[in-house]
Amino acid sequence: MHILVTGAAGFIGSHTVLELLESGYTVLCIDNFANAISDEHGNAISLKRVAAITGKPVPFQNVDVCDEAALEKVFAENKFDGVIHLAALKAVGESVAKPLQYYSNNLVASLNLIQMCLKYNVKNFVFSSSATVYGPPSELPITEKSQTGQGITNPYGQTKYMMEQILIDVGKANPEWNVVLLRYFNPVGAHKSGLIGEDPKGVPNNLMPYVGQVAIGKLPVLTIYGDQFDTVDGTGVRDYIHVVDLAKGHVKAFDRIKNVGNVGTEIYNLGTGVGYSVRQMVDALKKVSGRDIPVKIGVPRPGDVASVFCDPSLAQEKLGWRAENGLEEMCADLWNWQTKNPQGFSA
Amino acid sequence: MHILVTGAAGFIGSHTVLELLESGYTVLCIDNFANAISDEHGNAISLKRVAAITGKPVPFQNVDVCDEAALEKVFAENKFDGVIHLAALKAVGESVAKPLQYYSNNLVASLNLIQMCLKYNVKNFVFSSSATVYGPPSELPITEKSQTGQGITNPYGQTKYMMEQILIDVGKANPEWNVVLLRYFNPVGAHKSGLIGEDPKGVPNNLMPYVGQVAIGKLPVLTIYGDQFDTVDGTGVRDYIHVVDLAKGHVKAFDRIKNVGNVGTEIYNLGTGVGYSVRQMVDALKKVSGRDIPVKIGVPRPGDVASVFCDPSLAQEKLGWRAENGLEEMCADLWNWQTKNPQGFSA
Repeated sequence: MHILVTGAAGFIGSHTVLELLESGYTVLCIDNFANAISDEHGNAISLKRVAAITGKPVPFQNVDVCDEAALEKVFAENKFDGVIHLAALKAVGESVAKPLQYYSNNLVASLNLIQMCLKYNVKNFVFSSSATVYGPPSELPITEKSQTGQGITNPYGQTKYMMEQILIDVGKANPEWNVVLLRYFNPVGAHKSGLIGEDPKGVPNNLMPYVGQVAIGKLPVLTIYGDQFDTVDGTGVRDYIHVVDLAKGHVKAFDRIKNVGNVGTEIYNLGTGVGYSVRQMVDALKKVSGRDIPVKIGVPRPGDVASVFCDPSLAQEKLGWRAENGLEEMCADLWNWQTKNPQGFSA
Repeated sequence: MHILVTGAAGFIGSHTVLELLESGYTVLCIDNFANAISDEHGNAISLKRVAAITGKPVPFQNVDVCDEAALEKVFAENKFDGVIHLAALKAVGESVAKPLQYYSNNLVASLNLIQMCLKYNVKNFVFSSSATVYGPPSELPITEKSQTGQGITNPYGQTKYMMEQILIDVGKANPEWNVVLLRYFNPVGAHKSGLIGEDPKGVPNNLMPYVGQVAIGKLPVLTIYGDQFDTVDGTGVRDYIHVVDLAKGHVKAFDRIKNVGNVGTEIYNLGTGVGYSVRQMVDALKKVSGRDIPVKIGVPRPGDVASVFCDPSLAQEKLGWRAENGLEEMCADLWNWQTKNPQGFSA
């Protein structure tokens, strides 16, 4: 199967492309470098490394999915069996300050992509959704049947929720389509090779890249937002998942379509089902790195809740997928990437 | 105040423009005739009649709000104090069959309009929302604090819900903005003059224009979708509101902004607070028309619920608005319009 991957040069994209190639899929990668890093020739550094790791070609085009004409050219020149749509603006705080930019970019990109799939008869659509669609959890662990759409506190999360709804309705109107909504929990870690990993532009928005940069001395101190939550040690608990496991979830989604045929619209939580606190994550990285990681305590951010973790059993049952890496691998692989690439891809 | 009205040539648009003019506002009207009727010169017949009724100019341009360049020209050539955004695709059944068309049209139009308002410093935005955002009512009467977003069964309703969310977030990020979300219940009736009214293209999707066309002999029989609901007579109960009352709600929203200043984001139900059943509506039109209205009973449509009616007291308290017309006026004015224009505007 030949898969179009949008946002392919990013953290999740590059790992997903790698796993697709290792499983015999071929890909066309597109990205506009809104989040990812390009080299001086406008190529995706992460994807060149994927080519080096796999020994396979990783065709790439610099395309903004919001650019309808550019996207149509991609569809006109290629024959895809499916798409994996990862491209999106994703900074939660920025989305609150610039809601129109987030809604426009994330919705228009997705609408364009669906339109091209309809026009060029591409019926298999895997979408990168997020645990954020659940809002503050109505129950723990979160299952795919748990309530969504209530109490989402930022436009980024709203765009994920809206895109799910749009894809569900497109799936209903086109029953020959297969739509797979993958609800990511908190992706961390890096590929074992240490050649690809998370390289956020500017100050990291997510915990683990921040912790990694503190451990290596690039940032002075980690602020923990709240230590009075009702959790094991008062700090927030989340369901961290190794990015390689997450990437394999995408492959499993296409394997299922290949093997089962018309599955319609399906939704899967991709998490480990185990929650770790901020302090537990910091301690684990301390242990693998042998470095000191100074922390200070800040006030909780708006919308922060004590605990979020999922029940991933549906993905195991239907996709034959489960997370294989635990806390130690997440931290060891992050540290391996961090030490091999202290300045990220741009060094 | 100078107001841009999108979707101005439609049923609600034409009545709203009329009331704005009667209250001393000036307007620029745009419409792309997705729903409304144009004359052979591409002008809006409804708005020419508004000009005749009011004796005031009703400037009109044929503009699709989805056409960013055309919309920008409108903003570049005019100085608006506010916008009323009514333009949308609105056929519930069609939206289920063609979800992408509905999401693309309704979302992109709204995103374009917000973008122009931000760029050209237009800070007063009144949006035509709908009772559909409440889904199946979680309580009766429905207040503005009742749950929204759960159980909406069609893409049309989803676009209204999404646009509310987008505007709420834009309002939060731009606290100098005034955003007024008007949640319409079921607009019916027509202007007293009988010169403007509801003229749906093709077979009407809504109850009262359908009933009117049966009464006048244009359609043979009314199908009532379900007569076993838990209501006064088994048929579905809705909160019908005279379109002139609804139109005046928009004027009151701008009056409030003019008088109070920066109100931020506000949400109002526009309904009478009184529910009538399908049979009650049919009987009332029978009475004013003196015509027979044959009915047959069909099965309920997916998503149909027994009763929907609102608590409109917030609009009374804050806007000084309440519906002044009851069931009799709704039916008398509809029948006046229907008999004066048996073929609608195109005759």
